[in-house]
Amino acid sequence: MKASAPSKFGFCGIGIMGRGMAQCLLKEGRSLVVWNRDVAKAAELAAMYPDLCSVAESPGEVVAACDVTFCMLSTLEASEAVFPSVLEAVCEGKSIVDCATLTPQRMIEMRDAVAARQGAFLEAPVSGSKGPAETGNLIFLCGGDRALYEVVRPELGIMGKANFYFGEIGAGSKMKLVVNQVMGDMMCALGEGLALAQAAGLPCDNESGLLKVLELGVVSNPMFKLKGPKMLEGNHAPNFPLKHAQKDLRFALQLGDDLDVALPLTAAANAAFLAARKDHGDDDFSAVYETQKPPSNSPP
Amino acid sequence: MKASAPSKFGFCGIGIMGRGMAQCLLKEGRSLVVWNRDVAKAAELAAMYPDLCSVAESPGEVVAACDVTFCMLSTLEASEAVFPSVLEAVCEGKSIVDCATLTPQRMIEMRDAVAARQGAFLEAPVSGSKGPAETGNLIFLCGGDRALYEVVRPELGIMGKANFYFGEIGAGSKMKLVVNQVMGDMMCALGEGLALAQAAGLPCDNESGLLKVLELGVVSNPMFKLKGPKMLEGNHAPNFPLKHAQKDLRFALQLGDDLDVALPLTAAANAAFLAARKDHGDDDFSAVYETQKPPSNSPP
Amino acid sequence: MKASAPSKFGFCGIGIMGRGMAQCLLKEGRSLVVWNRDVAKAAELAAMYPDLCSVAESPGEVVAACDVTFCMLSTLEASEAVFPSVLEAVCEGKSIVDCATLTPQRMIEMRDAVAARQGAFLEAPVSGSKGPAETGNLIFLCGGDRALYEVVRPELGIMGKANFYFGEIGAGSKMKLVVNQVMGDMMCALGEGLALAQAAGLPCDNESGLLKVLELGVVSNPMFKLKGPKMLEGNHAPNFPLKHAQKDLRFALQLGDDLDVALPLTAAANAAFLAARKDHGDDDFSAVYETQKPPSNSPP
Amino acid sequence: MKASAPSKFGFCGIGIMGRGMAQCLLKEGRSLVVWNRDVAKAAELAAMYPDLCSVAESPGEVVAACDVTFCMLSTLEASEAVFPSVLEAVCEGKSIVDCATLTPQRMIEMRDAVAARQGAFLEAPVSGSKGPAETGNLIFLCGGDRALYEVVRPELGIMGKANFYFGEIGAGSKMKLVVNQVMGDMMCALGEGLALAQAAGLPCDNESGLLKVLELGVVSNPMFKLKGPKMLEGNHAPNFPLKHAQKDLRFALQLGDDLDVALPLTAAANAAFLAARKDHGDDDFSAVYETQKPPSNSPP
Repeated sequence: MKASAPSKFGFCGIGIMGRGMAQCLLKEGRSLVVWNRDVAKAAELAAMYPDLCSVAESPGEVVAACDVTFCMLSTLEASEAVFPSVLEAVCEGKSIVDCATLTPQRMIEMRDAVAARQGAFLEAPVSGSKGPAETGNLIFLCGGDRALYEVVRPELGIMGKANFYFGEIGAGSKMKLVVNQVMGDMMCALGEGLALAQAAGLPCDNESGLLKVLELGVVSNPMFKLKGPKMLEGNHAPNFPLKHAQKDLRFALQLGDDLDVALPLTAAANAAFLAARKDHGDDDFSAVYETQKPPSNSPP
Repeated sequence: MKASAPSKFGFCGIGIMGRGMAQCLLKEGRSLVVWNRDVAKAAELAAMYPDLCSVAESPGEVVAACDVTFCMLSTLEASEAVFPSVLEAVCEGKSIVDCATLTPQRMIEMRDAVAARQGAFLEAPVSGSKGPAETGNLIFLCGGDRALYEVVRPELGIMGKANFYFGEIGAGSKMKLVVNQVMGDMMCALGEGLALAQAAGLPCDNESGLLKVLELGVVSNPMFKLKGPKMLEGNHAPNFPLKHAQKDLRFALQLGDDLDVALPLTAAANAAFLAARKDHGDDDFSAVYETQKPPSNSPP
Repeated sequence: MKASAPSKFGFCGIGIMGRGMAQCLLKEGRSLVVWNRDVAKAAELAAMYPDLCSVAESPGEVVAACDVTFCMLSTLEASEAVFPSVLEAVCEGKSIVDCATLTPQRMIEMRDAVAARQGAFLEAPVSGSKGPAETGNLIFLCGGDRALYEVVRPELGIMGKANFYFGEIGAGSKMKLVVNQVMGDMMCALGEGLALAQAAGLPCDNESGLLKVLELGVVSNPMFKLKGPKMLEGNHAPNFPLKHAQKDLRFALQLGDDLDVALPLTAAANAAFLAARKDHGDDDFSAVYETQKPPSNSPP
Repeated sequence: MKASAPSKFGFCGIGIMGRGMAQCLLKEGRSLVVWNRDVAKAAELAAMYPDLCSVAESPGEVVAACDVTFCMLSTLEASEAVFPSVLEAVCEGKSIVDCATLTPQRMIEMRDAVAARQGAFLEAPVSGSKGPAETGNLIFLCGGDRALYEVVRPELGIMGKANFYFGEIGAGSKMKLVVNQVMGDMMCALGEGLALAQAAGLPCDNESGLLKVLELGVVSNPMFKLKGPKMLEGNHAPNFPLKHAQKDLRFALQLGDDLDVALPLTAAANAAFLAARKDHGDDDFSAVYETQKPPSNSPP
């Protein structure tokens, strides 16, 4: 890595997450070269920041134009579709910071491919969804090239409220899987609690029902506060699609398998999300509740 | 119930919880007649508040001397041992407020027995442990006699930061079981997360490890903050004994069975707590982690 | 107990199981006094064996008329409804052999009640359903009064192909629960296998599909052979109602809880049966498959 | 495929399974060219059948010398190590029959690679272990090249008591996974049953205990008869190593994930086997019982 701070950054993937992240950088005066599969979204961003933001025609063109390129693709499929073009443009002096949630293995493969072309690679999956992305409140869970981590800390600091370096490539993705395992289990636990309370004829609302009682106690947490009332209404507009949540639980179970760690609670949660995936895969992961709630229940 | 507020209250059970609760009442100037199996604890309290607090020789003597008696026994066994003496003294005008966490069925039985002697009965199990009991920050989850609930609201308000009335007898205990089901599942989820992170060689601490990442995210909650660091140290000094947590999960599963609600996540959590019960039944329920963590793990 | 063999036996409960069992005894020349809630069924049996079989008007009348009375009620509710009448007639020299599948605790209570009236009590729950009951191929799992066990061994030998004495009262019921736990888990395992095979587009039939492959291998067993093809057809005519199978799994889990034995597989099976209970409680326990099979699947 | 039956067959992998299978073919007069990583085992076989069996120096040499080559490698690792040498020798007219238990995906990859070199490929994983391999009682679960299946049916008939063709490549491996899923679940169910019976103080033996009761009932099966008594003795000499059984459960769960089929019972079984893997991975899969049985239990 060069010692001086890069003056221009690349950004591939201007979707739900990427748009907010890129805007945080632009607001702080960073120059960006952006690319998006749906070019309209990239063009829209460039139109908002004409002095700072330009649109490239391919991921490779982004990489060619910038020292450091952030990639924020939402799925393994999207990541795999974009990576070859990115890779083609990598050469000595080029750095890639990948913010997607992928398996540790996939991160290792990408690092190896980038390193084979003398580039530097940092995994930086994020904890947080659309809202935190827009307000610069993400949490970056990094692994891989330590020097690159130090170079991009200012930018991670703009896009996030905290960032961590956990060591060798894969460590950041493993931490992300653990976080999502805990989160998925908790969503499933809340769903069972709401189901049981509903069946028992207890109020569930956040004024004087279960959600309020939970809020007042030691398990009070922002996710229950945000999602609980929506679950009762049957509103599962996606912040974090259920199919992605289930995929992360599966990856966490696979990681446990690799490491001799049995995770029976997570296995049960994964089964619940999997049972909900066919009908609710694109809904928010709170939709697991749709398969947990008493059958005769109608929204209160 | 008499319309005027009682001038004197009974309190049976001056244990970990009861002592803090009784002291809250005494601090606010309520006169108490107390009883405890280990009389020394009752005497100690009376010595601290000689003008307000006197010691009775039996639970029945407490009831005989007061219009309203609070009972705070920690287990079903303790409750069953004390109740006959309480019951014997019940007659018209006597009211019993039972704050133990028991099954809905047991609460119904006690209400029926009290009602058969013309007494009034309110179940008022609490959410919260030793700390909140001492500082008057419990949450009361009430069911049963509505008029009695209104009479004792001032005292519940002294001992707790919130109180709820959920309807007929049993409803409060059901809500308590749901809350403890969610809490037990969450503790188990945290334990699996810590186990997975440790096995993966990731830091777990609350400075720059998993606990810190969880604290910054949407699942951040007081229980993880309080218990997480202790779990890593192997410190399971009991706030909520594991055997009681497991019992409540079992009761929640039984409630689900009664109501046609399958709770597969909770069933897995219950199995984990049950597997830990023999060796860690008297430890805090966080000790479930001892059976989840990687075998070779030594405290960091 | 008298040393000489009884010349006449009582039989309370001439239902699906009891009828076959009673007929086995009659075919071997035993004299029976029978009682059934639906008196028509008892009368029908008496009409078939006019020299050997007479109908009593109450369970107590049966007990009063015979030294040894077999009880074969299908549920706890039926058993509890009949027992008071039975008990009332018990005195010294009277023996009760209860063949229902109840909890160990219930058996202990009944034994205590019978013993308090100087009677003898043997629990003798059976493994086997309608077919084996008719052909005298049941298996009796006994506990309680050893001398009574020896007295009725000839009759157990007529109704069953094997009988076991496992010791103190409750032991027979515990063994029954273990057997039904293994059986319930296996049914659930078969259901998951059929579901997975169907979803994978594999043939499942017993000619050249999964059921045939299973039949040829080390897990081949009569239950899979009998139930497998019916499950594929959606034929769940009850031999063993699902609600009873689920109840036994719950009792097995409770027994495990009492004994510090976590049974996570059985807990998952219980959750599956419980999820199926509302819609399929009166169907055969093979109907758990209805909630396991792929949603779009139509019978082949 | 040529219409005429091959006069000579190749056999790669003369291990626990392969040795018995190869001997069955030799006994029936088939000429074999064999290869094994540990050449001594191949040489020993050749010495026993000097007229029929010759040893090749590499898998590729086997393929080069024969029209049809059977491969029987015990693990994915062994299979992956051998396949490149096999593949190198494949050309038009060469056929590969792979009898390993691998993922459907791996079978598809091998088929594709063989097809790219104009060869034919049949997957033929087997149900059955060492004993059936020696006595010609395996069950072949085939998928892939139908014409090749017809060509080798005589040889499959020599090595096995039954063989099935389930369609396109991968179908045989999927069926194998389903069979092993049912088997793994059943072993886990037996283990929980034995654990519960032991804790309850019930006899478990196959004379007058749980194993005998199971043997007499509808769930009676060869696996329980064979493994049950050994489990009680703590004898887990491997027929089917636990780590392989756990791997197959994981693959079955993955297949379920691919197909939208939640398998909560199998997930619980997988967790049990995974918990046992570290200490008992090379023992028989019956060793899952070591982690299920009551802690204080000593062999009876």
